[in-house]
Amino acid sequence: MLEDKNKQKTSLAELGEFGLIEHLTQYFKIHHETTTKAIGDDCAVISQNEKTLITTDFLVEGVHFDLSYMPLKHLGYKAVMVNISDVYAMNASAEQITVSIAVSNRFPLEALEELYAGIQLACDTYKIDLIGGDTTSSTKGMIISVTAIGSAKEEEIAYRNGAKPTDLIVLTGDIGGAYLGLQVLEREKEVFKVNPQNQPDLQEYSYIIERQLKPEARKDIPKLLKELEVQPTSMIDVSDGLSSELIHICTQSKVGCNIYEEKLPLDPQVISTCEEFDLDATTVALSGGEDYELLFTIPIKDFDKIKGNPNLTVIGHITEENEGVNLITRGNQSIKLRAQGWNSFNQEN
Amino acid sequence: MLEDKNKQKTSLAELGEFGLIEHLTQYFKIHHETTTKAIGDDCAVISQNEKTLITTDFLVEGVHFDLSYMPLKHLGYKAVMVNISDVYAMNASAEQITVSIAVSNRFPLEALEELYAGIQLACDTYKIDLIGGDTTSSTKGMIISVTAIGSAKEEEIAYRNGAKPTDLIVLTGDIGGAYLGLQVLEREKEVFKVNPQNQPDLQEYSYIIERQLKPEARKDIPKLLKELEVQPTSMIDVSDGLSSELIHICTQSKVGCNIYEEKLPLDPQVISTCEEFDLDATTVALSGGEDYELLFTIPIKDFDKIKGNPNLTVIGHITEENEGVNLITRGNQSIKLRAQGWNSFNQEN
Repeated sequence: MLEDKNKQKTSLAELGEFGLIEHLTQYFKIHHETTTKAIGDDCAVISQNEKTLITTDFLVEGVHFDLSYMPLKHLGYKAVMVNISDVYAMNASAEQITVSIAVSNRFPLEALEELYAGIQLACDTYKIDLIGGDTTSSTKGMIISVTAIGSAKEEEIAYRNGAKPTDLIVLTGDIGGAYLGLQVLEREKEVFKVNPQNQPDLQEYSYIIERQLKPEARKDIPKLLKELEVQPTSMIDVSDGLSSELIHICTQSKVGCNIYEEKLPLDPQVISTCEEFDLDATTVALSGGEDYELLFTIPIKDFDKIKGNPNLTVIGHITEENEGVNLITRGNQSIKLRAQGWNSFNQEN
Repeated sequence: MLEDKNKQKTSLAELGEFGLIEHLTQYFKIHHETTTKAIGDDCAVISQNEKTLITTDFLVEGVHFDLSYMPLKHLGYKAVMVNISDVYAMNASAEQITVSIAVSNRFPLEALEELYAGIQLACDTYKIDLIGGDTTSSTKGMIISVTAIGSAKEEEIAYRNGAKPTDLIVLTGDIGGAYLGLQVLEREKEVFKVNPQNQPDLQEYSYIIERQLKPEARKDIPKLLKELEVQPTSMIDVSDGLSSELIHICTQSKVGCNIYEEKLPLDPQVISTCEEFDLDATTVALSGGEDYELLFTIPIKDFDKIKGNPNLTVIGHITEENEGVNLITRGNQSIKLRAQGWNSFNQEN
């Protein structure tokens, strides 16, 4: 809908690259004193007294998102979330981003304004400074590349490799929703193709659709852990699915783990939608991905500090490496977990 | 030639994203103590006592490069150069990069190995640490996004906005070559389409073709200026054409300038190829772009420090803003310069 079929819309060629970036970023505010120089020079300049954290992710149209049901404003918001989530997953504070976009000429200026409105909303909500980027044309579709920059004291950074046997495994929020939201959206897209007049009522899927279209990164968790005086021994964000993330932590920490099926935090909408789609909720929780919750380990002695916190669920514990990475089912069976996370190269392009 | 027509080659889907990035980056070395953690976690971690500089650029197949004459190894090398050039253009030291690539399944592993061989050569030659990135599939072609990170003391950083009237305008190396190299390569591509048996002899164009296919960033210049005890009042790299860069400096510094046609440093191959292509060498020098030389201004009192240095040419001087941005021709005419730099959105896609 936002493509350049209406020739009255503003074409990107009119503005040129410098005019475009200036136009799109004119209302962005700077939130951090550490941002010395933002957009407008060969480089941005930042000051860091602490350690600097850097992470970067691509979002490619037709691979990571589908504009037929992903509004551009949501896409801009999500592009920021996906990246700052990786900073929070180091138990750090996210402060700056760069955003680069490559778009084909089919997008008018108004489409990019929508995208940047979402980026700006995310920046204002999460107090992130947009400090740079690149804007160019592509031969097909839209590609977004975001780099997020954060800071943390050295002793507070949580890597993936510090989990120790007996540590507790903690998960924030609930999981599986983003994947199911995508299933609902994909189904409605097929319905729409057959009957464009159909007005779907998505009310009963509102939570899981929001998990897919407008995920929120867990900025609150590093802050909460500091208040609780808990230093995670390892940490990762759940972007590719819980199984995959657990295996990352266990492999890098040279440990094993047991997690318990009955402990997996699932929203009621996840359970009901799994029934409707004839999907196993545990499989969805383990392999779904895109929830942007945080998964971390803490020493068992810190259990009392987190006990009863509604944001945090203990889902299992770390074991010796030779015990493997296992799910303990409700029937008390031990099943070896495999990474079944998403692999973009397996898509049919 | 490097596409996946030979099914014996390794497909990217076999390796998956994590396997792929591990495979491609296994031989990269870390050069800097400031790199605390490179690839393998949610973020890279770096330590900076000085200011941190960040810059990012896209390279899109069919927009910024053409694989029919751009070897993948050269492309990897150039992708690094384009970005670290922006760090040197702040009079800073480049230390780390992240590299993200999106590629369609038509590329086999061996193609990406070539690309990363070029990235690694650039990293080793320029002492740059590869600290992260993203690897994903695209629906069409290859897209590369590089973010470069550097450091500098606050008082040494050269922004675009510090040029003052009477300052001298200094250019490194020579210009126009990269643009002409591209013209030669485009011509040979057309010849090849008509007669694939034709073996072109490109010996007489070797310098300008190398300027296009294997540019070198001016790492030596910030070092040289420090040795000469010269602090530039403003600085930029020549990526979009000399006119465009001069206008950036003058606009941001709120000054004008005069540059002299007779002073523009041109390689003899640039002059002879301009004659062959019936192009005006001055126009090519002003608008060509992609030379990745540095353009900077220095106080006139520092002239003696740079005088006679073969790397540096004084091409003009800064004036009051109301005098405008002008080229003084060999015939002593003053011509107002316009930015005729490259605008990717004007390409026909």
